[in-house]
Amino acid sequence: MIYIERTESFSAAHQLFNPKWTDEQNDAVFGKCANRAYHGHNFQLTVVVKGEVNPDTGFVLNLVDLKQVMMEHVVDRVDHKNLNVDVPFLLGVLPSTENLAIAFWALLQQPIANLGGTLHCIRLRETDKNAVEYYGE
Amino acid sequence: MIYIERTESFSAAHQLFNPKWTDEQNDAVFGKCANRAYHGHNFQLTVVVKGEVNPDTGFVLNLVDLKQVMMEHVVDRVDHKNLNVDVPFLLGVLPSTENLAIAFWALLQQPIANLGGTLHCIRLRETDKNAVEYYGE
Amino acid sequence: MIYIERTESFSAAHQLFNPKWTDEQNDAVFGKCANRAYHGHNFQLTVVVKGEVNPDTGFVLNLVDLKQVMMEHVVDRVDHKNLNVDVPFLLGVLPSTENLAIAFWALLQQPIANLGGTLHCIRLRETDKNAVEYYGE
Amino acid sequence: MIYIERTESFSAAHQLFNPKWTDEQNDAVFGKCANRAYHGHNFQLTVVVKGEVNPDTGFVLNLVDLKQVMMEHVVDRVDHKNLNVDVPFLLGVLPSTENLAIAFWALLQQPIANLGGTLHCIRLRETDKNAVEYYGE
Amino acid sequence: MIYIERTESFSAAHQLFNPKWTDEQNDAVFGKCANRAYHGHNFQLTVVVKGEVNPDTGFVLNLVDLKQVMMEHVVDRVDHKNLNVDVPFLLGVLPSTENLAIAFWALLQQPIANLGGTLHCIRLRETDKNAVEYYGE
Amino acid sequence: MIYIERTESFSAAHQLFNPKWTDEQNDAVFGKCANRAYHGHNFQLTVVVKGEVNPDTGFVLNLVDLKQVMMEHVVDRVDHKNLNVDVPFLLGVLPSTENLAIAFWALLQQPIANLGGTLHCIRLRETDKNAVEYYGE
Repeated sequence: MIYIERTESFSAAHQLFNPKWTDEQNDAVFGKCANRAYHGHNFQLTVVVKGEVNPDTGFVLNLVDLKQVMMEHVVDRVDHKNLNVDVPFLLGVLPSTENLAIAFWALLQQPIANLGGTLHCIRLRETDKNAVEYYGE
Repeated sequence: MIYIERTESFSAAHQLFNPKWTDEQNDAVFGKCANRAYHGHNFQLTVVVKGEVNPDTGFVLNLVDLKQVMMEHVVDRVDHKNLNVDVPFLLGVLPSTENLAIAFWALLQQPIANLGGTLHCIRLRETDKNAVEYYGE
Repeated sequence: MIYIERTESFSAAHQLFNPKWTDEQNDAVFGKCANRAYHGHNFQLTVVVKGEVNPDTGFVLNLVDLKQVMMEHVVDRVDHKNLNVDVPFLLGVLPSTENLAIAFWALLQQPIANLGGTLHCIRLRETDKNAVEYYGE
Repeated sequence: MIYIERTESFSAAHQLFNPKWTDEQNDAVFGKCANRAYHGHNFQLTVVVKGEVNPDTGFVLNLVDLKQVMMEHVVDRVDHKNLNVDVPFLLGVLPSTENLAIAFWALLQQPIANLGGTLHCIRLRETDKNAVEYYGE
Repeated sequence: MIYIERTESFSAAHQLFNPKWTDEQNDAVFGKCANRAYHGHNFQLTVVVKGEVNPDTGFVLNLVDLKQVMMEHVVDRVDHKNLNVDVPFLLGVLPSTENLAIAFWALLQQPIANLGGTLHCIRLRETDKNAVEYYGE
Repeated sequence: MIYIERTESFSAAHQLFNPKWTDEQNDAVFGKCANRAYHGHNFQLTVVVKGEVNPDTGFVLNLVDLKQVMMEHVVDRVDHKNLNVDVPFLLGVLPSTENLAIAFWALLQQPIANLGGTLHCIRLRETDKNAVEYYGE
């Protein structure tokens, strides 16, 4: 068993705002992240896949295929978008880094299984100082 | 003469869109950067100041003061904002990295002169791959 | 269950020197790290917290609160200090990266529990080449 | 129990090519990585060791010793080499990042045990976007 | 006048070896860089372009176009190649970082002029420790 | 004419304190940098050399030689030292980043000229946020 990882980046706008709360509650909890006209980040998405090494290729899976899965299922759908309003699979989701990682796991688990690997971890970095890791449970 | 630099970061949303053009023209020129609901970045602002070394302090100027000038005049006014709609000094400015750097120069030149240094360069990094430098002329 | 991390930096002097040993023993074991007048590093402290995502906030815990806990309990007490002589909670501790990580765990575990999270890992980077991770056991 | 890590770099040429396959099969699977005249990378090797902290030194083990083991058993044998033809312990191995990490584990496990630590993980970074981790099983 | 830069990466093999010299001379001058079966690097190519800001776009030139020029004229021709034998425009050139930067300048100057900018600097990074800059004269 | 650069790191303690001033003046000007028992940093020293490319080697000068000059004349004399008390060539110098860069220039200019290059710039990075550049005049 070995773990391989691939990192891709995307740039997106978002806002942390709970529509069930008043403006005052949102400002108290989310502070400047609740800015009404949004703010944004360069996000770094790292996908960690585990599996056995194929003796004919030396690969767990081909990183060209993993990149294609990441681009098709996640990156191309969120890059240069507004995560609150532009992305169908995120509608109704409060786009915190935690919730984004969980949503990306749901989109990537099956396509990665189809490539012959097992999704192990979604790592999502929002800034040099902040990141999350999700292991699917 | 020696050059000192200080780097601070901010996260902001923006959109590249020329209101004098049709939607089609904007999409043709700006592509995904024209996304109507905005996108965003973690920007890195580096300010380079030149000056003589003060023999009593070993400093061109005190980086604590330079940081305060950067925060007050630029970073606190753009961090977690939408550069198209939230920032008074950018209203009417197409917020490309180039135009941001030029606008930041105008805001920082006098306050840095007041500290006893000469603003030499504004470096603004938008992503790991893209950056601009402006020398004031 | 999800893992969030926050990174803060501090700059400190230290020396690796065991007062129970002779100078020769210290030089043999610690080499240039035993320099009598100290040396120093920019340390990067990363705190990893695990927890459930709060459905109202999308957060395990608020990173503003986590940052405040890190600053108050650790960073402000070690930044621009000498770890051998200036820091009450480190007196009598040989300030290796390992011992620093263990000491920081002891200081951060309860305050992070008070925020509703579980401290999972202290990661402390001393240089681009050296780092430690401590999981509390 | 605590985990320490040390990172060293090396620059090497390699080619992904399975001699049991036709040229067409190799090109189909490995694409540009099968370039007949090789290509190359700056690899970053990180070795993670776990162990108890020695109360006299504050160390799991001395990083000077760990560096020496890494240089002697791996880095000096692969740096500025062609991993397909120059390195005796890799002859007959398809030098994918996965297979390199597994080969390095085999070379480092005993020497690190001799230093009093337990090899926990080999992390090998091939580019900013690609890396593997191997835990020995 | 403002300066914009774009960075792209490529991975290549090369060897420093002067065919007019004996093996001994090559080993004496180039050391491990003369390894007969090549070694390799991840190179980072940064292109700096200067120009006036177009008031309609806020751009010196469109970075999408600059990227396309870099990929077509340089990156796609050297990525996953052997710089000594695979690249027509480098045949007969000793592929030191200096000579690569000079060769890339010659290829990029006119296409960048065609985009309306002026090539200002080619920066080529070979490792975290080594880089060159060429300004065309 | 082309510019090559080499980066090396060192870890050192220092203190910003002007002995001609009172304690109160030092604290007012230097703040936490005046900590009496010192603090420290990982410094990154980059040396930029300009020169013509030698047609036989493809080099401005051999980076192995440049590294040796940097290690012998600067890095080995400041690494794991206290810059206020341990380093003969810095005695009486207030070890600000500015003054360090100027002192390193004086030590490196002639040895680099002896290698056949011209020292162009000393870049000294103290933290991710702070750096200086000195061009010798």
